[in-house]
Amino acid sequence: MLAQLSKADMEQRALLSGYPLLSCNGPIIFRKAAIYMLKYDLGTGNKENWLIAETDFDVEHQGKCEAIFCQGNGYLGQRAALEEEYVRQTRDLLVTGTFNRFDEQEVCELPNLPDLTRIQLTLNGERFSMDHGTVTDYLRVLDLENGEVTRTLSWTSPKGFRYAFRFERFVSLAQEHLSGIRVCITPVDTDCTLVVESGINGQVTCTGSQHFHEGEKRFLNGRILSMVSRTIQSDVTCCLHTAFVFSTQTGSVQPEQQIPVIDRRYLGIRATLHISAGQTLIIDKLSSVTTSRDLAYEGQTEAALCAQQDGLSMLESALEAGYEGLRDASRQAWAAFWQASDIRITSSHPFDQLQIRFALYHLNIMAKKDDPRVGIGAKGMTGEGYKGHSFWDTEIFILPYFILTWPDAAKSLLTYRYKGLYGARIKAKENGYEGAMYPWESAWIDDGEVTPKLGGADIVTGKPIPILTGMIEQHITADIAFAVDLYSRITGDQEFMDRYGYEILIDTARFWASRVTWDTNRNAYVILDVIGPDEYKEHVNNNAYTNYMAYHNLELALNAIETLKERQDDVCAHMDEMFCLEVTEQKIRNVMDRLYLPQPDANGIVPQFDGYAQLQSIDLSKYKNADKLGTIYDDLNPEQINGIQVHKQADTLVLMLLMDNLFPQDLKVRNFYFYESRTLHDSSLSKSTHSVLASDLGEKDMAYRFYNGCGDVDLGPKMNTSDMGVHTASMGGIWQCVVYGFGGVRVVSDELHIAPHLPDAWQELTFPLIWHGQRLMVYITPEHCIAENQGAEAVVVTLCGKPTAIGAGEAVQTDF
Amino acid sequence: MLAQLSKADMEQRALLSGYPLLSCNGPIIFRKAAIYMLKYDLGTGNKENWLIAETDFDVEHQGKCEAIFCQGNGYLGQRAALEEEYVRQTRDLLVTGTFNRFDEQEVCELPNLPDLTRIQLTLNGERFSMDHGTVTDYLRVLDLENGEVTRTLSWTSPKGFRYAFRFERFVSLAQEHLSGIRVCITPVDTDCTLVVESGINGQVTCTGSQHFHEGEKRFLNGRILSMVSRTIQSDVTCCLHTAFVFSTQTGSVQPEQQIPVIDRRYLGIRATLHISAGQTLIIDKLSSVTTSRDLAYEGQTEAALCAQQDGLSMLESALEAGYEGLRDASRQAWAAFWQASDIRITSSHPFDQLQIRFALYHLNIMAKKDDPRVGIGAKGMTGEGYKGHSFWDTEIFILPYFILTWPDAAKSLLTYRYKGLYGARIKAKENGYEGAMYPWESAWIDDGEVTPKLGGADIVTGKPIPILTGMIEQHITADIAFAVDLYSRITGDQEFMDRYGYEILIDTARFWASRVTWDTNRNAYVILDVIGPDEYKEHVNNNAYTNYMAYHNLELALNAIETLKERQDDVCAHMDEMFCLEVTEQKIRNVMDRLYLPQPDANGIVPQFDGYAQLQSIDLSKYKNADKLGTIYDDLNPEQINGIQVHKQADTLVLMLLMDNLFPQDLKVRNFYFYESRTLHDSSLSKSTHSVLASDLGEKDMAYRFYNGCGDVDLGPKMNTSDMGVHTASMGGIWQCVVYGFGGVRVVSDELHIAPHLPDAWQELTFPLIWHGQRLMVYITPEHCIAENQGAEAVVVTLCGKPTAIGAGEAVQTDF
Repeated sequence: MLAQLSKADMEQRALLSGYPLLSCNGPIIFRKAAIYMLKYDLGTGNKENWLIAETDFDVEHQGKCEAIFCQGNGYLGQRAALEEEYVRQTRDLLVTGTFNRFDEQEVCELPNLPDLTRIQLTLNGERFSMDHGTVTDYLRVLDLENGEVTRTLSWTSPKGFRYAFRFERFVSLAQEHLSGIRVCITPVDTDCTLVVESGINGQVTCTGSQHFHEGEKRFLNGRILSMVSRTIQSDVTCCLHTAFVFSTQTGSVQPEQQIPVIDRRYLGIRATLHISAGQTLIIDKLSSVTTSRDLAYEGQTEAALCAQQDGLSMLESALEAGYEGLRDASRQAWAAFWQASDIRITSSHPFDQLQIRFALYHLNIMAKKDDPRVGIGAKGMTGEGYKGHSFWDTEIFILPYFILTWPDAAKSLLTYRYKGLYGARIKAKENGYEGAMYPWESAWIDDGEVTPKLGGADIVTGKPIPILTGMIEQHITADIAFAVDLYSRITGDQEFMDRYGYEILIDTARFWASRVTWDTNRNAYVILDVIGPDEYKEHVNNNAYTNYMAYHNLELALNAIETLKERQDDVCAHMDEMFCLEVTEQKIRNVMDRLYLPQPDANGIVPQFDGYAQLQSIDLSKYKNADKLGTIYDDLNPEQINGIQVHKQADTLVLMLLMDNLFPQDLKVRNFYFYESRTLHDSSLSKSTHSVLASDLGEKDMAYRFYNGCGDVDLGPKMNTSDMGVHTASMGGIWQCVVYGFGGVRVVSDELHIAPHLPDAWQELTFPLIWHGQRLMVYITPEHCIAENQGAEAVVVTLCGKPTAIGAGEAVQTDF
Repeated sequence: MLAQLSKADMEQRALLSGYPLLSCNGPIIFRKAAIYMLKYDLGTGNKENWLIAETDFDVEHQGKCEAIFCQGNGYLGQRAALEEEYVRQTRDLLVTGTFNRFDEQEVCELPNLPDLTRIQLTLNGERFSMDHGTVTDYLRVLDLENGEVTRTLSWTSPKGFRYAFRFERFVSLAQEHLSGIRVCITPVDTDCTLVVESGINGQVTCTGSQHFHEGEKRFLNGRILSMVSRTIQSDVTCCLHTAFVFSTQTGSVQPEQQIPVIDRRYLGIRATLHISAGQTLIIDKLSSVTTSRDLAYEGQTEAALCAQQDGLSMLESALEAGYEGLRDASRQAWAAFWQASDIRITSSHPFDQLQIRFALYHLNIMAKKDDPRVGIGAKGMTGEGYKGHSFWDTEIFILPYFILTWPDAAKSLLTYRYKGLYGARIKAKENGYEGAMYPWESAWIDDGEVTPKLGGADIVTGKPIPILTGMIEQHITADIAFAVDLYSRITGDQEFMDRYGYEILIDTARFWASRVTWDTNRNAYVILDVIGPDEYKEHVNNNAYTNYMAYHNLELALNAIETLKERQDDVCAHMDEMFCLEVTEQKIRNVMDRLYLPQPDANGIVPQFDGYAQLQSIDLSKYKNADKLGTIYDDLNPEQINGIQVHKQADTLVLMLLMDNLFPQDLKVRNFYFYESRTLHDSSLSKSTHSVLASDLGEKDMAYRFYNGCGDVDLGPKMNTSDMGVHTASMGGIWQCVVYGFGGVRVVSDELHIAPHLPDAWQELTFPLIWHGQRLMVYITPEHCIAENQGAEAVVVTLCGKPTAIGAGEAVQTDF
């Protein structure tokens, strides 16, 4: 579809985009179908490896850039659907925690709020659209450094007039309720009557489900458009306020005519302005989004009213600050973020640097770091996929980044799980178990299990297929316990453990103690009928991942109980009252001591589940080399796949990564090659596990190849796999490849280990870590590793196997 | 936008459309912006004046042809949105009576059923869309004679391959639940791998409001797609079944691959087929639509299940008959319709003929003629405008056509009003009146008043503007009584009057008797604070139209009571029990005798309401000559308009048309010129009244000009005024122009008068009438008028003022 661009082309486009091209000294790297990497200078600083660009518009592939260019701040996410309309657009504006259920048959989801991004421009009677006329010099850039998206293009209209366009957008990282869009229009060769139509459009739905009552539409104070709508079931009031400011280079201008446009679920203006040939008209659209579910109004009876009033006054202040003032505040917040979080990679392949920054960008906009009532959706707020629900992905793939970089955010995310005990206990009870059985999919803290019960129709019987994950994919309960312990070990946050952590550890262990079945043949407790992380395999017994993680969960609870009993304080008393610690301890110990843990066979392979060795092994190269995901389903149905040694993702290998002290290195090597050859990596979670393990096992090239594969999940050539949103777990996975894998960071019992394995292509890797509240900077080159303690207290770090004390402000170098 | 086509162009296009062009002896008439008239021969008959064609596709103006090319059969309406996707499409599938309310804040509306029309075609990897590549020889034709829409075009893809397309559609007039789409694809210069994706799409909404639960999606018997969804409030189950058949000229073919596509609210297939260069592949999509609200299931407890089973078995039968079999059955039904209803006009301007046929086509698809539980929507089922609600338009503008052509349908439509007495009585009670106060807007028979309470926001205060029509536009109650009486006089249907008619007449009169206010100054009853048909004027007192019509309503009730009292039979006893006829008679007579009826002023002008003469008179030429509707609102706000002698539509003139014996001819002439000069005709109801009156007054040229204006309401150059659907009342108005106006047909007390006024351009006019069950054919030329009695009984008709007996099978000629 897209031709490879020459360096000259790219320089020309970069120039037209308004950024002066100061240096372009490296190669412009062509990256797959539509994702390019640009390196040019913003004047204020080197933009090398900060920019992701789309150099051609393709109506078929809008979803890709809508998702990967999505802007947000953890509170809201705004997909990068273009201002003008095209078929196949998905305009999403999602706000964390606003879950609503359309009806009793559906599960709750993040509702799609009224759209703010649509701006229709008509120039001398011709509607601007890239569907007609001729577009040249198209360039759309996401600048990861400041979170801004810029689109520049020249358009020759069907009647032959030329116009230059520049579109800019930001969602403020400084003021999470605010966002701005700027449109600059220059008619090149004609005077122009411009008609702008834009406003607040509540006609959007989630794939057809409408979550809002129409609500109130108003024009306030002569210039502000206001739409206040309530969700139909969860009763969340969402308030949108927006206003337009028109100007030229010489100052603000008033439209010749501005009339209100009111339609069902729609409120807008139609403004008519004159632009002389060669002049540039600037349209600024500033907006605020507030909801009654915002943390600020928690527990307030007048939350809806407050949200409405605050939304208005925020927009009024925003109008005083102006587009540039707001944008600059957001830029500063982004600068602070990168100051704290940036990971720098010097590589022969500059894309390696861009990829980790891309991951860090999305890790930053996916999480509301201060709101313990919300989790991270599997697609963040970049699309409607998985309905905004949280899975095990958060704890196993994403949380390590937060624990080691933003521990307060990690605490908030785990507190969300503490609040989720409510639903977990209900789920356990409903399934006939004790303790806390975490929902496979979680939404609002009161919602409990929100996994849909039925999926697509069986093409043979015509009947809907039950979705089993909500019932039998149970490892998430142990995964959450694992993450609580990891958080505790990395932060040493005893207060968290006392208030939340112990309760989670013990009640999840109580679930497992009630979940097991006694197997008289084996003379052991077994865990029957589950799905492990590898979802190709349903209804399996003694899934190694699940059994070992459950064992670990039981062990963590026992340790907790022992600690509590030693303390004999209020916390202990409270837990004792809740759980009767003596009885619970006995129950847990009884199950733990006799829990069946799958052992390596004669070849050293840990079987993924009972009977694994008896499954057929087939040639998978056709599927492994396919350029689409899930091609195995074109040949085999789920039942057939269940009977073959083939995996969607690393299942036993995730276990070996998480419990890395449990298995000897040679066993890990055997299992790695055995299982990798049988894995199709059809899950976005698969490659990062393989990359980190490959690093651990000294397989540098493989680790590096898998790292690139992780980037491909969203930035790669499969142009429709991000349509429903980016893969947030993959972003955490990319971070793990770099920090856990190449950086060799691991937490072993209570020690921080750093044992780097730099890829051959890399000359340098620098990343921050926060260990027990102290910020460390780690600098790695092929020759040495330097750990600098930027904190106020001394720490002990195991550098390349050697425990090393590093005083506050000190740096320690280890040569290889 | 569109260039005028040469005759040669049109001949060429007609040829390409697949219809052999036998004769093109008249001029090809260029008609306004995008509507053309074609005359060519189908081989089987002369197609002159049967075809409406769109000769260029314009994404901005899709709504126009979606509405005017809408297909249906009174049970369902399917907008003519194109198979492939474009921005600004509105895919509507509406089924009569299925009203649902999205929430408590909205009023009920006809829900948009899952779409059947979208068919996505990908040819050698290029998605077919007229947005890219080059389109030549585009022609889309609605054939009024058989209700079929055909689109033909040649497409050169972006990669340069040429394809010929032919799309055909019908909605069966013979089997109201069935419809078909046929797509023929011929790759001209390349072998082609075609991927077809289509199915049943429940993601559609009504401007954002989703009326359906997701429901069940199934593949049945390996080939039939089934979606069964329930409305969320009214609990109507809608069942859609569809199937695909692929063939070439040499017989049926199987796709190389056919896989199911299942998404939220969507069920489809993706079929891959090979087409050799020069070959034509034919895709037939046959569908059935059934609902639990269908008349067939009235009162059945298992209605939803029956609808589902019947929908499936109907589609199975349809598949046996095949596309052509089904289509031919529909053609036969259309032939029968035209046999009974066609009006033939020989004019120097052939468009005159096309225009009346266009009206008759839409009159035929707007009404479910056999279901007394449903009315006619203001937009029929051609769009979402006015939510499918019925207004006074039905009785005053549409019903005369049905009474005089399809009296059984007219009876059904008035029985709908009888069933609506339920809501009318509730409305009267809620407003503190007696009797039956008809809802301004009606939907399902149980719904009562469904006029929205609030409209758009006031641009100054920001507050929503109350919609007053539901409260104070009250003339509809008298309009319905008027229509009942008209029906009775034309059909002599005593059974209807006994069962339904008298009850309507008396209870509506009881409303008026309670509605009036005593005015001591005038020493008369007055009717204060209403809106007349002219909606520019709100809160007026003694609107002439309302007062005279109310008087007539009271008079009709008195006559009814007198008739009943004379009969002293069961009907009388029943009415007496219900209304206590003696008391009611007194009340009615008391009010009627003293009701204030606005009288002509010194200049012979009947004031539209109290104080009319004091309003300011301004120069309206700017607005009268504007090429958009409603331009007066650009300069004046509603309050200012209220104070000016300016009218949206004929208000007092409608009165003079309906009560044509009440006012002397010279007074009508004065009022006609007076009011017409102050009327902007911003209502689609305005011009037909003026045309008929102009005919009556001997103003032939004006009558003819207004007739053309009526056609312009939907067929004219205003390209967006039909976006929300065609104007059904305008269709009735066109018929009235021809039959009431040029044909000079009028019912005066119990006599049928025919006194033609043929426009100068016309050489002949032929139309059918049914008078007291006898079918008459009326042939009019400039020289004479022939009335032929095709019925079995003799009738008396007043021809050109002379009462004339016409025996069964006889024809009487009157020379002018």
